[in-house]
Amino acid sequence: LIFIFLLNVNGREIDDTLVFTVATSETDGFLRYMRSAIEYGIKPVVLGLGENWKGGENIRYRPGGGWKVNLLKKALEPYKDDSNRIVLFTDGYDVMFLSDLSAIIDKFKKTEARVLFGAESSCWPDADLESLYPPVISGKRFLNSGLYIGYVPDIYKLLTYAPLKDEGDDQLYFTHAYVDDKLRNELNFKLDSNSEIFQNLNGAINEIELYHNTEKEYTEFKLKNVVSHTEPLVIHGNGFSKTKLNALGNYLARAWTPEEECKHCRWGHIDLEKTQDANMPTVLLAIFIENPTPFVEEFFQKIGDLEYPKQRIHVLIHNAVKYHIPHVQQFVEASGSKYLSLKQITPDDGITEWNARDLSLDLCVQKECDMYFAVDSIAHLDNPHTLRLLIEQNRTVVAPLLVRPEKAWSNFWGALTRDGFYARSHDYLDIVYNKKRGLWNVPFINTCYLVNGTLLKKHDRTKITFVRDNLDADMAFCGNLNDLDVFLYVSNRVEFGHLINTDTFDVTRTTPEMYQIFENGRDWAARYIHPEYPETFNPDKKPLQPCPDVYWVPIVTRRFCKDLISMMEAFGKWSDGTNEDNRLTGGYEAVPTRDIHMNQVGWEPHWMQFLQKWVRPIQEHIFTGYFHDPPRSLMNFVVRYKPGEQPSLRPHHDSSTYTINIALNEVGKDYEGGGCRFIRYNCSVTDTKPGWLIMHPGRLTHYHEGLLVTKGVRYIMISFVDP
Amino acid sequence: LIFIFLLNVNGREIDDTLVFTVATSETDGFLRYMRSAIEYGIKPVVLGLGENWKGGENIRYRPGGGWKVNLLKKALEPYKDDSNRIVLFTDGYDVMFLSDLSAIIDKFKKTEARVLFGAESSCWPDADLESLYPPVISGKRFLNSGLYIGYVPDIYKLLTYAPLKDEGDDQLYFTHAYVDDKLRNELNFKLDSNSEIFQNLNGAINEIELYHNTEKEYTEFKLKNVVSHTEPLVIHGNGFSKTKLNALGNYLARAWTPEEECKHCRWGHIDLEKTQDANMPTVLLAIFIENPTPFVEEFFQKIGDLEYPKQRIHVLIHNAVKYHIPHVQQFVEASGSKYLSLKQITPDDGITEWNARDLSLDLCVQKECDMYFAVDSIAHLDNPHTLRLLIEQNRTVVAPLLVRPEKAWSNFWGALTRDGFYARSHDYLDIVYNKKRGLWNVPFINTCYLVNGTLLKKHDRTKITFVRDNLDADMAFCGNLNDLDVFLYVSNRVEFGHLINTDTFDVTRTTPEMYQIFENGRDWAARYIHPEYPETFNPDKKPLQPCPDVYWVPIVTRRFCKDLISMMEAFGKWSDGTNEDNRLTGGYEAVPTRDIHMNQVGWEPHWMQFLQKWVRPIQEHIFTGYFHDPPRSLMNFVVRYKPGEQPSLRPHHDSSTYTINIALNEVGKDYEGGGCRFIRYNCSVTDTKPGWLIMHPGRLTHYHEGLLVTKGVRYIMISFVDP
Ligand SMILES: O=C(O)CCC(=O)C(=O)O
Ligand SMILES: O=C(O)CCC(=O)C(=O)O
Ligand SMILES: [Fe+2]
Ligand SMILES: [Fe+2]
Ligand SMILES: [Mn+2]
Ligand SMILES: [Mn+2]
Ligand SMILES: [Mn+2]
Ligand SMILES: [Mn+2]
Repeated sequence: LIFIFLLNVNGREIDDTLVFTVATSETDGFLRYMRSAIEYGIKPVVLGLGENWKGGENIRYRPGGGWKVNLLKKALEPYKDDSNRIVLFTDGYDVMFLSDLSAIIDKFKKTEARVLFGAESSCWPDADLESLYPPVISGKRFLNSGLYIGYVPDIYKLLTYAPLKDEGDDQLYFTHAYVDDKLRNELNFKLDSNSEIFQNLNGAINEIELYHNTEKEYTEFKLKNVVSHTEPLVIHGNGFSKTKLNALGNYLARAWTPEEECKHCRWGHIDLEKTQDANMPTVLLAIFIENPTPFVEEFFQKIGDLEYPKQRIHVLIHNAVKYHIPHVQQFVEASGSKYLSLKQITPDDGITEWNARDLSLDLCVQKECDMYFAVDSIAHLDNPHTLRLLIEQNRTVVAPLLVRPEKAWSNFWGALTRDGFYARSHDYLDIVYNKKRGLWNVPFINTCYLVNGTLLKKHDRTKITFVRDNLDADMAFCGNLNDLDVFLYVSNRVEFGHLINTDTFDVTRTTPEMYQIFENGRDWAARYIHPEYPETFNPDKKPLQPCPDVYWVPIVTRRFCKDLISMMEAFGKWSDGTNEDNRLTGGYEAVPTRDIHMNQVGWEPHWMQFLQKWVRPIQEHIFTGYFHDPPRSLMNFVVRYKPGEQPSLRPHHDSSTYTINIALNEVGKDYEGGGCRFIRYNCSVTDTKPGWLIMHPGRLTHYHEGLLVTKGVRYIMISFVDP
Repeated sequence: LIFIFLLNVNGREIDDTLVFTVATSETDGFLRYMRSAIEYGIKPVVLGLGENWKGGENIRYRPGGGWKVNLLKKALEPYKDDSNRIVLFTDGYDVMFLSDLSAIIDKFKKTEARVLFGAESSCWPDADLESLYPPVISGKRFLNSGLYIGYVPDIYKLLTYAPLKDEGDDQLYFTHAYVDDKLRNELNFKLDSNSEIFQNLNGAINEIELYHNTEKEYTEFKLKNVVSHTEPLVIHGNGFSKTKLNALGNYLARAWTPEEECKHCRWGHIDLEKTQDANMPTVLLAIFIENPTPFVEEFFQKIGDLEYPKQRIHVLIHNAVKYHIPHVQQFVEASGSKYLSLKQITPDDGITEWNARDLSLDLCVQKECDMYFAVDSIAHLDNPHTLRLLIEQNRTVVAPLLVRPEKAWSNFWGALTRDGFYARSHDYLDIVYNKKRGLWNVPFINTCYLVNGTLLKKHDRTKITFVRDNLDADMAFCGNLNDLDVFLYVSNRVEFGHLINTDTFDVTRTTPEMYQIFENGRDWAARYIHPEYPETFNPDKKPLQPCPDVYWVPIVTRRFCKDLISMMEAFGKWSDGTNEDNRLTGGYEAVPTRDIHMNQVGWEPHWMQFLQKWVRPIQEHIFTGYFHDPPRSLMNFVVRYKPGEQPSLRPHHDSSTYTINIALNEVGKDYEGGGCRFIRYNCSVTDTKPGWLIMHPGRLTHYHEGLLVTKGVRYIMISFVDP
């Protein structure tokens, strides 16, 4: 990375300016602070790094922080007489620079103050002092001690005007000085009430806006205070505004720019491409099947397909659903031995989700894993590089963005309500729809995420848990990490996969996935649509035409054929082949087959969707200029031909504009004879292929018959489209 | 003709039996009588033939006939003492024998009477004598003098018991004898009260029935008296029963038998096949156009096509309808000079139908024509031999049977009501539908008939006229002929032609015959359906198929095309070619043409009929197994393409199961370019032929466009069938 240090007329002065912050640990917030400093050529001196914090507990919401004053006091002592030297102090975990020092110094000089503190709207920690504050013409009245600037001698004087304990409150200390008229005047001590330089976010969230500054040489997002009409240069996510700063921090300090996009993504990024398998980080892959989930077979398939050395992965599976036992079994049998270890928690173990997830963290610690990777059964990792890419992203916690296809439902929340539930952020849809790609600091993630194993080592294990009040495991975990100032990143830098919808999954059905065309259309198609389906639309090829205007194209998989036959045979109520048919409006069928209608197995809406989404495009491709969207069809059924029952069908027309006829099983293997003869053309299609569809005009030209099945059972699926 | 004289054990006696009748003239009734006699081997002696009638006027309804007694008296004198010889007397004009003499004599002998008279139900001409009649056990009480039998001496005694004037009443004379107890006993004088032999019809019409006797060697119709359970052997159509006898006479005496059919047709038949043109009877052909009549062009065509030497035909045309002036003109110009003479009475002459018809008879007399042949404009003589065949039939008056096709409406009545109007006879429908073919003596004919010129010479011209009270000319004429005992025959021995229906003919239309598809469907088809239409159904041929499933067959004549274009251009309100079309239910047409819809010219029902009757069979032939009868079509229109207006039509489908597209004019002559291109097959039909139809599937496979007309105007007729 190349950092551009801007030249400035005040070059010297800037180089001489002292910038201090306090941070005992390189938290996610601290790294963000440092990145913003480096972005603008600022080189802060970090006080206290590696030391134990001495400034009191939980100082965000409780008094404390006196230690920060004492640290700075000590650091300034060598310069205390250098009356032209300027010092800038900021907090370290919740602050970002939004400009270089020259702009800050320019603005500071314009205030003509010797000491300038950021201001905020509430008088904290001692509201009784409010009345002592001098009035202001506009802006915020009260002092905040997270951001301040001044000439070194004056600041030093302020830091030393009275003694302060490490656990004492820094803000109370400075407030007392400010409300002391004599001291204030003596120090020429001012507050930046209109946020010319310092923006304290707490209580001012509604006053600020991100805006896309195109005037500067560098196109980037800047902050604007729309109340004071200023452009603050340092931002401080004090108090409850931490989450807001996290959101702004996704853009500010050139984290994300329209031209470079996710610039901050590249910060700290590592490369494992050349790392040997044996040296790859060890991962605890924790799989959770907490609810009946469609397409679990495919889920495991994708888990198995992850391009990561299985010998570096410990697997833990928590399956809470009896229905899925065979699916887990299948995975374990096929791949279990390839992993470094594999442990199952079965439905019979009766372990709750909370416990299972906490156990998985314990297992990670126990296995001394480098990475903890949680994947729920609804998370389909279509991108086999997902695990590696997330590790390379090198964040404490990072989730791959997963979305319900064509829906706005994802595995993260862009914002929170006051009480910690889902709220939509300004950029939520842009992220979900991949209009912006990047790495996003968000308040809530779930379903699939990678946690750096160091986190588990660094903190007390009682703090990192899926249990918190009555909350869901996910919300508890995210809330707990938030308290630890751990950032929850979600990445949509590339496509990782998608989410399964479990809403209507009914495992009492014979082939429940067959009913999932609406809720999980993409997965349905992946399982059931013939892989060569798109070839029909290949402009360089012509669809097969075995008889005039009879087209023959692949449409569904063998799995579809098998599942449809199972569905029908499980239902079993085949019609009796007579002309009386009370399933029809007229009660009469002139050319009866032995069949079961889709609506008898509750599958008609699904079939209509299939016609609309998959059959109609073929029709439009083949029969140019005919449009009927959605297709209509009242007759949708599976026919069973067999000797001794009904082995053939006499010549007839269909009441359709076009008919589709899908072979469901295999001539020569499952049955002999059969096929469809088009009488006017003296042309037959007999070598039908399972999953292939015959499409032919129904009403006028294609008088046809079902040829004699001489042996076995022939199944076909028929729709009379646009009757 | 061969007459079979039956052998009989009483051979001698039969040969000795005297059979007398009286007839001054060989009327139609007399000829019928003679034919019946000859049929059964009876050889009557005809008294008074060629003499003037002396027995009083109008004796059917008034007393008279004494002359008959006096004639017989004289004729019997030579045999008056031959006591074993039997004499049978019958009237001659209204009597038929229904058996041979042996059966009559057998039955007579069984009565043990010496004198036996027929009986009737009323006492005539002197009702006062009723009380003098002896009672009868069953049957009729009163004497009728038209039929009697007896031993010659007793009959002679009866004929001479008192003097009788020629103009005196014969029946009164015999009645007086019968009611004279002494004389009756002395003569052993009986009445045939139960019609063992003699059936007088008057007053007994409801007692008799024709029945088909299959027991005898000769299968023939016989008479049965269902009251007395007898089978009378001689029938007498006395008084008002004349018409009934005429009807019965069509069958009795083997006039018509199931095996030989119309035996009496061959009676008196002449043969003109070998007669030279110059020797053919001269004919006055009287043509009457009394009302606006559809298809008058074809009428004249058929008149002109009659195979009869025009040089033996005088033509008189009475045209009362201005609209038809050009049609008459056309005929006169084309053919007038070929006839022996031609005279026109035009609408401007203001001559009534009655006068015109009487004038035509006068002209016949004046031209000394052998035959008078009246033909009304509704009589289409499809059989060009009609005139010759009617002459050869050699009856006084004979009409060819003409019927409205597929209707029961003909040019004759089978029976009359009491007041002389139409009544249906038992055999009316059999005749009209040609289930029985023959020559039928009926009470009323019209529209077309041949009258033998001798009739006009024989009778006072004031008696042969079309005027009578307020009656129609036809009814007057028939009534007058009936009074003259002239039989009105109608022949359906062969097909002669058919009747035109004028009911709805609206000459204010531009092409009024185009609207006659319902009322005169056969004539409509003859004018408008392509002569090669039936070839489409020829099993040895395949209809042309210029593009896949696009069929091309002849359907209408050029005349149709011309008339349809005239109809549309006369209407003139072509659509504006925009998408807004308030003629349609939706008000919107996606692919608009410049057109006129059939319903705008009041021609939609007719077009629907055309589709049903003429297009549908082609569809059913071509597109096997598709049935939709009647076809439905909401879009039926004539399209006009022309440069500068709308010269082409963009690719589209039709909202039809199949579309028909009839070329109305001629490419290369009327226009250049144009035609219909089927895009999916990359195949065009451009060399369209007027009157030929293109039939193609509408909705799915045959995406098509109307090609650019570069010059002239192209007209097509379109229907979207079964939308
Ligand atoms: O047996 C076949 O392939 C034809 C079936 C068919 O035509 C129908 O079900 O309508
Ligand atoms: O110009 C032609 O022959 C085609 C006309 C046509 O397709 C239509 O009117 O729908
Ligand atoms: Fe079918
Ligand atoms: Fe069309
Ligand atoms: Mn603080
Ligand atoms: Mn802070
Ligand atoms: Mn009389
Ligand atoms: Mn008589």
